[in-house]
Amino acid sequence: MQIAILSFFHYFTPMFKKRESVFEVEEGNLLSPKFDKNGLIPVTTTDYKSGEVLMQGFMNEESLKYTIEKKEACYWSRSRNALWHKGKTSGFIQKVVDLRIDDDQDSLWMTVDIGDGASCHVGYKSCFYRSIKLGPIKNLNEIKLELKEKQKKFDPKKVYKDQTNPTKL
Amino acid sequence: MQIAILSFFHYFTPMFKKRESVFEVEEGNLLSPKFDKNGLIPVTTTDYKSGEVLMQGFMNEESLKYTIEKKEACYWSRSRNALWHKGKTSGFIQKVVDLRIDDDQDSLWMTVDIGDGASCHVGYKSCFYRSIKLGPIKNLNEIKLELKEKQKKFDPKKVYKDQTNPTKL
Repeated sequence: MQIAILSFFHYFTPMFKKRESVFEVEEGNLLSPKFDKNGLIPVTTTDYKSGEVLMQGFMNEESLKYTIEKKEACYWSRSRNALWHKGKTSGFIQKVVDLRIDDDQDSLWMTVDIGDGASCHVGYKSCFYRSIKLGPIKNLNEIKLELKEKQKKFDPKKVYKDQTNPTKL
Repeated sequence: MQIAILSFFHYFTPMFKKRESVFEVEEGNLLSPKFDKNGLIPVTTTDYKSGEVLMQGFMNEESLKYTIEKKEACYWSRSRNALWHKGKTSGFIQKVVDLRIDDDQDSLWMTVDIGDGASCHVGYKSCFYRSIKLGPIKNLNEIKLELKEKQKKFDPKKVYKDQTNPTKL
């Protein structure tokens, strides 16, 4: 019964263009995104001024549609299992400057304007504030990270107060 | 029995540092990457000169270790289910300039030097050669893409010959 109801809604819910040929997907001019088994597509978000990668997240159909229409980044939060209009709590809204899709349409690249804001829940501008030391590995469990951002943009304790930290072990 | 054998190997195989506290993962100086249920971690690859996103792929433990040691990008190919030393067929090796990990250590950002080469199996420099038209959506299955790279860097038919196209519907 549940399957029948789901199929019914699926049939009448507007969908992105069906993926019908490899040529169309790769060389065509219509959006036919591929969502994974969990209904998600990865998105890499970069800063339109500096070009740096700010974060990497996921979208589902609804958040992708919202992002295209409103020109503000909306992700799917896997830790909270909910739509995540970025900046709703911190105030650091991501205004979308450009949104690209890759060759097989299963990955997105979004360029955003965050003004003088930040995109990382730890407080840094970019989530990617640490570099991995490259070269020969002596011990796999002692590979060093080097801090690349010297200062946090905000204090997460003040901004997020008693919200649960999304980082999982 | 199978579980016992796997545990035995797991115990004696060198591993990345165990993830023991959220504070260490977020603020520490040791690499403790989180691989998903399939043993993979997403990686976004950017060009060190232009800053543009070239591709988005995945690594497993072995390909991450190889990339760190050899300073050449090695991914895990999900379509071929095999290690993928990028450029082995096309000649477009990606030399790693910087490799970063994000706050909760479940995503990588790799900056590479590809010279005058390309990173996309369709022939373009970047896999992200099309922009999605933003704004109000009339029909979800008619969202337009705009081509942003005007010329291919190589002819995939000549380079890959009769290899199977990795794009899946």
